[in-house]
Amino acid sequence: MARTHRYLINGDFSLSISPLDRGFSYGDGVFRTMVMRNGLPENWPLHYQKLVADCAVIGIVCPSAELLISDLQQLFLQDAIAANSVEVAKIIISRGEGERGYAPPAITMPTRVVVSSAMPSYAAANYMSGVHLHVCATQLAQQVQLAGIKHLNRLENVLARMEWRDETIFDGVMSDQNGNVIECTMSNIFARFDDQLITPDLSRCGVSGITRQRIIWLESTLGLSIEVEPLSMLRLLEADEVLICNSLYGAFQVQRIGTKTWPQHALAATIRKALSHD
Amino acid sequence: MARTHRYLINGDFSLSISPLDRGFSYGDGVFRTMVMRNGLPENWPLHYQKLVADCAVIGIVCPSAELLISDLQQLFLQDAIAANSVEVAKIIISRGEGERGYAPPAITMPTRVVVSSAMPSYAAANYMSGVHLHVCATQLAQQVQLAGIKHLNRLENVLARMEWRDETIFDGVMSDQNGNVIECTMSNIFARFDDQLITPDLSRCGVSGITRQRIIWLESTLGLSIEVEPLSMLRLLEADEVLICNSLYGAFQVQRIGTKTWPQHALAATIRKALSHD
Repeated sequence: MARTHRYLINGDFSLSISPLDRGFSYGDGVFRTMVMRNGLPENWPLHYQKLVADCAVIGIVCPSAELLISDLQQLFLQDAIAANSVEVAKIIISRGEGERGYAPPAITMPTRVVVSSAMPSYAAANYMSGVHLHVCATQLAQQVQLAGIKHLNRLENVLARMEWRDETIFDGVMSDQNGNVIECTMSNIFARFDDQLITPDLSRCGVSGITRQRIIWLESTLGLSIEVEPLSMLRLLEADEVLICNSLYGAFQVQRIGTKTWPQHALAATIRKALSHD
Repeated sequence: MARTHRYLINGDFSLSISPLDRGFSYGDGVFRTMVMRNGLPENWPLHYQKLVADCAVIGIVCPSAELLISDLQQLFLQDAIAANSVEVAKIIISRGEGERGYAPPAITMPTRVVVSSAMPSYAAANYMSGVHLHVCATQLAQQVQLAGIKHLNRLENVLARMEWRDETIFDGVMSDQNGNVIECTMSNIFARFDDQLITPDLSRCGVSGITRQRIIWLESTLGLSIEVEPLSMLRLLEADEVLICNSLYGAFQVQRIGTKTWPQHALAATIRKALSHD
């Protein structure tokens, strides 16, 4: 495999992960993915706030922003100052090493990992006409205690992503066991009906991304009413327009889901512009 | 933390886990825990069969039995030949390293980890009078695609285990979202009603352990009828006797769940003897 990644573990380039790390043993941790522009993390206050909140849900005290910023600087700043560099940072916080067994040690030292990777090169067509989505057979289980957080238990997303190999498909739309659309494997989703924008309720499953939150905050800018509510697959397919979003690409219009297609609209481009992703 | 563990990664004592390993990124793998007696794994055919089957569910080709046995021998045999040694082996198989993103590489090389740890020292009272169980508030989400397999997405078990610190509590009983008892955090469960032994249906959640399977196979030996069916918490508490089991301790009677207590019966000892765990 091409070694396109560099990483820092607990601030050290020479460390690696112990197999006793509870991130490896149990997926006992959380993560974030963000754009690094000229060596600086985009929307860092929101990413750090979400990291702290997600850690707290599973009882981890998130490492300080100072430590994480220092890691990001070590990993990104030196090669980034010169050019208009755009890279991707992934931050993983695990509960740290433990003994065998589910009970965490009385005192845990979270493991912090920062990984740098190349920014994906998105096809021009994604911006111009939109993206195609697969409809995933893999459903999201409902677990109120973990809903919304970006934890390391991501087997459902892995199985869903393994459902297609067609490279013209950008992402796959996932439903819960009641047939409500929740999200895509790596994106949140919005559906427009006239001047109302609906995004699914994530109180029982799904990952509540910061770009979804930023779009919700654009309500008055966009002149749309934005509602968080259940959204069936049937209703999604009747939308006037469908959008997906994440921190890396901002927002893309959906051109096709299965056999249903939509004409091009301007909303995704407007949102990208408002999110400064153009 | 006391370094009571030794481990071997892909047959090598000097390796460690990359943060790009999908076991760490996504909990994308499976595991097994077994007793090593005099350097040999107990019930190895069943453990290996289950490892292969669990890998297959998530699309991993399990490393060969020869490789894993060679790992176990390297890790355990040298210090085990002399005495009547009893230790614990944990085998973890992850999908291996990947790029950022949920799609596995076209060719993956599974990571195999074997960890040795000390056998837990169970209190004599567990054998004599039984164990106490906590009733977990954390519920198991229903996910048919992952039900029964011992994958690395174990945050529910971690959260459930974090519910108690009282060391007199041996394990916690977990229910699904319909109020049906499924298992304990590290054990399967049986309830006896007269001459019928019930163990919960694990087709929607839970881990189907090999000791549970071995007890089911003891049906004629025990002279009991053994049924796999839904078991509500209310019905569990009305059982004549409750047992829990796993590969390390075999079987223990449950003496107490919350405020409900049971007198001592002989079945757990009989099952331990039949399983050769005495």
